[in-house]
Amino acid sequence: MSGYFFVFDGMDGAGKSTALNGVAASLRRMGHSVVTTREPGGSPLAEQIRECMLGDWSDGVPPQTELLLVFAARAAHMQHTVLPALARGEIVLCDRFIDSSHVYQGVLGGITASWIDQLGTQTIARLPEASFIFDLPVEQASQRLQQRGIENRFDRIDLERMQTIRDAFAQRAQAPSHHLIDASREQSAVHADVLERIEGLLA
Amino acid sequence: MSGYFFVFDGMDGAGKSTALNGVAASLRRMGHSVVTTREPGGSPLAEQIRECMLGDWSDGVPPQTELLLVFAARAAHMQHTVLPALARGEIVLCDRFIDSSHVYQGVLGGITASWIDQLGTQTIARLPEASFIFDLPVEQASQRLQQRGIENRFDRIDLERMQTIRDAFAQRAQAPSHHLIDASREQSAVHADVLERIEGLLA
Ligand SMILES: Nc1ncnc2c1ncn2[C@@H]1O[C@H](COP(=O)(O)OP(=O)(O)O)[C@@H](O)[C@H]1O
Ligand SMILES: Nc1ncnc2c1ncn2[C@@H]1O[C@H](COP(=O)(O)OP(=O)(O)O)[C@@H](O)[C@H]1O
Ligand SMILES: [Mg+2]
Ligand SMILES: [Mg+2]
Repeated sequence: MSGYFFVFDGMDGAGKSTALNGVAASLRRMGHSVVTTREPGGSPLAEQIRECMLGDWSDGVPPQTELLLVFAARAAHMQHTVLPALARGEIVLCDRFIDSSHVYQGVLGGITASWIDQLGTQTIARLPEASFIFDLPVEQASQRLQQRGIENRFDRIDLERMQTIRDAFAQRAQAPSHHLIDASREQSAVHADVLERIEGLLA
Repeated sequence: MSGYFFVFDGMDGAGKSTALNGVAASLRRMGHSVVTTREPGGSPLAEQIRECMLGDWSDGVPPQTELLLVFAARAAHMQHTVLPALARGEIVLCDRFIDSSHVYQGVLGGITASWIDQLGTQTIARLPEASFIFDLPVEQASQRLQQRGIENRFDRIDLERMQTIRDAFAQRAQAPSHHLIDASREQSAVHADVLERIEGLLA
């Protein structure tokens, strides 16, 4: 199994998706085969599981159910999308991955980190070469979110909650193969920074 | 938390659903409040998760995904249906439960029993008072299935596979609070047997 697996993670409104699309375009211009994908989702079955999760259920979604749906979708996404692309030697750029599970289902949802790591061990056959954690002040992320518009129920604007999320992602960014990216800069600077790090990691 | 939680489990075509409905009617005639439910499913969210699982996906459903969907649905079913009914002091009769996970996702799907038990520990806050494992020769189950008609992709008629399922359920039936039920008898005998065991367990 070769190929390269890169993750773009961090709080809503940080500019992950914008940077991911920009970096994918640059890599393609350089001649690389690039697959862009996202979690939860990224395969037909995983997208359907995402719909269950994001549905407006009158009883809500219990934290354990949300967690297991995320990992059920992740297992399908890995099996049907990520691993086949890596086996073809391609570069996979993925919007959100297990760090989001640790932050949203773990720190916010009250699930222990060790249980999330156990689920990861059972479902993730191949870890990313690098995870880029997009970091910026919550007021700035909130402004970007307001400009863009809310995409789903996870995109709530609540500065205190956003600060908890920012701090939790910064904590995750201390792990090996994680890069804390200063996402407060203008798009071209963020884009160039991430692209340079990826180029440094391509053999 | 009081109430009583009883599970009807075993191979397809064994007569679980028929007996469950009959026993529920008898218990209601005796003045008990009874909730009948099923897995996977049993709550609106859990039924939607069931649809994901049973869907006709061109790539199939990876074993880990199927397993995690089952437990995601189970966590929601417990939280939204089973535990509230038990808290009201009612009797819950559930069609399939964790023994089915051990047989279908475990023995047939290749998932280890210890991983399934860990998922159980995380998601099942209250164990059944008793699980009735419906047991009968596979040829007889196959005849009943053919009479009734196939309900979903788990209901395949393949005698060798059915024997593996029968043996795996018989193994599970050795656990505490499990009862092996001779389901080869006529409906009235099976019904009376299960009802008598339940009456013995009601305080
Ligand atoms: N570096 C940046 N500077 C200013 N605005 C940005 C920057 N990156 C993205 N945006 C804008 O901020 C909003 C959120 O970006 P988006 O990529 O959707 O964030 P995320 O995917 O992390 O939620 C979008 O309207 C996008 O155009
Ligand atoms: N004890 C029994 N003897 C003969 N037929 C039965 C008996 N119990 C159920 N059946 C019939 O067998 C078929 C399968 O029963 P069902 O309750 O749907 O099984 P299961 O829920 O275990 O798959 C149905 O057509 C049902 O009417
Ligand atoms: Mg995005
Ligand atoms: Mg049935």
